[in-house]
Amino acid sequence: MAEPAPFLYRQLADMLAGQIRQGLLAPGERLPSVRALCEAHAVSLSTAVQTYLSLEQEGWVEARPRAGYFVRVRPRGAECEPAMSRPQMVAREIAVAHLALDVVKEARRPGVVNLGAAWADPRLLPLKALAREHAELARHKPELLGVYEISAGYPELRRQVARHLQRAGCRCAPDEIIITNGCMEALALSLRAVAKSGDTIAIESPTFYGVLQAIEAAGMKALELPTHPRDGVDLDSLEQALKRRRLAACLLIPSFNNPLGSCIPLAHRERLARLLASADVPLIEDDVFGDISFQWPRLPAVKSFDRAGNVLLCSSFSKTLGPGCRLGYVAAGRYADRVEHGKLLANIATAGLPQAALANYLARGTYDRVAHRASRAYYRRSEQLRHWLLECMPAGTRVTQPQGGVVLWVELPSHVDGVALHDAALQQQLSITPGVIFSPHADYRHHLRISYGLVDDAEMQGAVRKLGVLAHDLASRRSS
Amino acid sequence: MAEPAPFLYRQLADMLAGQIRQGLLAPGERLPSVRALCEAHAVSLSTAVQTYLSLEQEGWVEARPRAGYFVRVRPRGAECEPAMSRPQMVAREIAVAHLALDVVKEARRPGVVNLGAAWADPRLLPLKALAREHAELARHKPELLGVYEISAGYPELRRQVARHLQRAGCRCAPDEIIITNGCMEALALSLRAVAKSGDTIAIESPTFYGVLQAIEAAGMKALELPTHPRDGVDLDSLEQALKRRRLAACLLIPSFNNPLGSCIPLAHRERLARLLASADVPLIEDDVFGDISFQWPRLPAVKSFDRAGNVLLCSSFSKTLGPGCRLGYVAAGRYADRVEHGKLLANIATAGLPQAALANYLARGTYDRVAHRASRAYYRRSEQLRHWLLECMPAGTRVTQPQGGVVLWVELPSHVDGVALHDAALQQQLSITPGVIFSPHADYRHHLRISYGLVDDAEMQGAVRKLGVLAHDLASRRSS
Repeated sequence: MAEPAPFLYRQLADMLAGQIRQGLLAPGERLPSVRALCEAHAVSLSTAVQTYLSLEQEGWVEARPRAGYFVRVRPRGAECEPAMSRPQMVAREIAVAHLALDVVKEARRPGVVNLGAAWADPRLLPLKALAREHAELARHKPELLGVYEISAGYPELRRQVARHLQRAGCRCAPDEIIITNGCMEALALSLRAVAKSGDTIAIESPTFYGVLQAIEAAGMKALELPTHPRDGVDLDSLEQALKRRRLAACLLIPSFNNPLGSCIPLAHRERLARLLASADVPLIEDDVFGDISFQWPRLPAVKSFDRAGNVLLCSSFSKTLGPGCRLGYVAAGRYADRVEHGKLLANIATAGLPQAALANYLARGTYDRVAHRASRAYYRRSEQLRHWLLECMPAGTRVTQPQGGVVLWVELPSHVDGVALHDAALQQQLSITPGVIFSPHADYRHHLRISYGLVDDAEMQGAVRKLGVLAHDLASRRSS
Repeated sequence: MAEPAPFLYRQLADMLAGQIRQGLLAPGERLPSVRALCEAHAVSLSTAVQTYLSLEQEGWVEARPRAGYFVRVRPRGAECEPAMSRPQMVAREIAVAHLALDVVKEARRPGVVNLGAAWADPRLLPLKALAREHAELARHKPELLGVYEISAGYPELRRQVARHLQRAGCRCAPDEIIITNGCMEALALSLRAVAKSGDTIAIESPTFYGVLQAIEAAGMKALELPTHPRDGVDLDSLEQALKRRRLAACLLIPSFNNPLGSCIPLAHRERLARLLASADVPLIEDDVFGDISFQWPRLPAVKSFDRAGNVLLCSSFSKTLGPGCRLGYVAAGRYADRVEHGKLLANIATAGLPQAALANYLARGTYDRVAHRASRAYYRRSEQLRHWLLECMPAGTRVTQPQGGVVLWVELPSHVDGVALHDAALQQQLSITPGVIFSPHADYRHHLRISYGLVDDAEMQGAVRKLGVLAHDLASRRSS
């Protein structure tokens, strides 16, 4: 692990911020005095002071003269967030696939500072431990290379994944788990298991371009739902849509929407599961960032409220352990047979040796520690990035406040074009993702997705300053 | 390698049989005398005698009293081969997917003697050498687990595959190679790259059920072409079909059709490539068994005659190195960009570490030796299996004479039902594949595919005897 243990004040600040997020400390509530904090946690006076200073800087608490520290009524910067999206709620075919492909390729150019890809930082991944499991199996079980693995997956990995999902509140039988080559495959197989060409899939707006492309590749249409930058999809709008039209499925990213970083609150999750079950519309729940949560422990998945086998939870280990393993899964509920059949047709089975290696790694029980440590690092980066963006970008820029994951969403002033900024940035060896590829027909023209997955604090400031200069330049050119 | 070096007489017999297959020794031609053979190859008299006895037994040559040995005008058993298939040439939707899935699952039951699956024998695969490459990379390049590999594939493997394809007479640039999770994925991506839902794909009849299911999953229709049990697809019929209707693509298994074991002769290959190029209809060439060839060196692939980038050659290393690696490829010609895009949507990229391991293995240059040795073993098994089938099955049974691969095709007397025989055999712990799943609408009701991939000579005789008893039983029940 490249990430050192955080300072004590940082641990304490993270814990208190977590309690505020979870509502254990309510807005307006008074916090313990500095001295009380020292005693309660057996820390020095300077650690306690530093803890409150950090929380104040990050906008969690405010100091009131002679009264002490209080939980802020609204976290700092809420006024700088974008508003709820208001897509036209019309089922549409998708037409941005090739633009998205170009953007993905550009981010790989050597020498580019990568604020574009929603990838995990290799420095935060337990690569050596994973590699040891691979080497061990290659030495002792070469026969794994000599057979086709079962289409549904290596049995011990299916069992470990079922156990793993307890973290997200899910009680899954190993039988409903289908191992895939990453989460994209899980999504593609799930779509084809629940819907057919011509069908309509309800999605968030904006949503991950990979989701849009998977829907397009399956010949399906997308219906965009209004989505809040912090609380995710608007359930009232979904309820109306369910009444008005035939939806074959709903494909959502409840924890944490890519690109928004939004998180559907706990109470909404239960309602969402009920709504869809009673309409008999399956939910494909993309949980790929679910374990990069800034609230710890993470919220239960929507699937945890599913009693009807109606939710297909899709995820992978690409964001927490290693994307190079290409290992993901669907917890497919009553669609398990169909997903398994789709897997057989797609590529017969996932390779056995990496599956066995991952199963052995998970059995060691270190996953939680690794994922928590990474989440804390990403949380700090997200706060830093947001701070620098609000400081450096033109006035009127709005920035989401991610609840997890490795990306945030930027709404530029309406006269600054996101694609033009992307092009200008790329010429300066800086990759960002233009907002247009996060909707079926290239809406979000003055939006960007920016990732803090690959850049650490040191690189971030310089990159955002550079981006700010370019954005100011574009803004002034347009207004002159 | 579990397979020992063959006896000298066996090597000599294989070489002569190869010359007969290639037409270097013509039907009716007189072979060198036993003594001349001794001198030409510096072998003992008994080795030379044993060589001719083997060739006679296998039906390649015949002894004429006091005149010596002559190449047989028709190899023994040609009269026992099935006739050319005569499918209705109508584009049809496919409806056997679920039956095929059941058959695949049954073959995995523990304790079953597996004559059903067209898998390679792990005893003939270089698993330890492959595993060593995996272990080496896991130790020295754990960073491979930390990144998404490029969608098109690990660059060094693409280069090695391009080199590898020279064996099949193909000059491919590494740029047109897309690495996939095995050959099934290569086929599925190729279909979606050249055709869309509702389009018609021309195929052999019978053909691999995986091909049928891939066409079905993509929402396409299949047009079956008459196919010869030895020479493969009938080009005159294809030519007519091209004139009469719009075909989106042709998906063929020229070397060696599964289930027939047929092989399109060299002269036909060039004509096939020309026919399709001039009609501007792409060919998806499934070459997964191409290197398990009973003629050595193997015939050039149809792609080797392609000058227009019109052929997408799909293959894998599952039959010669190890199916557990799940590594295949498309040499996609002018469709490379489309296949790469499909790969990105399907699962982003194939895992990097196994790709790097395979690249290192291929660089060692032992592939040819391994594939040749396995091919010789499968050739002997194919001859044995054919012999036992003609001996044990009811009169009127016809059996193909595979030119490569690990399966052959059995035509039972018309009153013996293939599915009933499959069911009865499975009750006796013996798996075979019923013929019905090799056509879009369950034709071939009194046919079977039998694999010699997993059973060695010792197991084979008992299994076929058992199958023969069951078949005789079914035949007599029907006629009584």
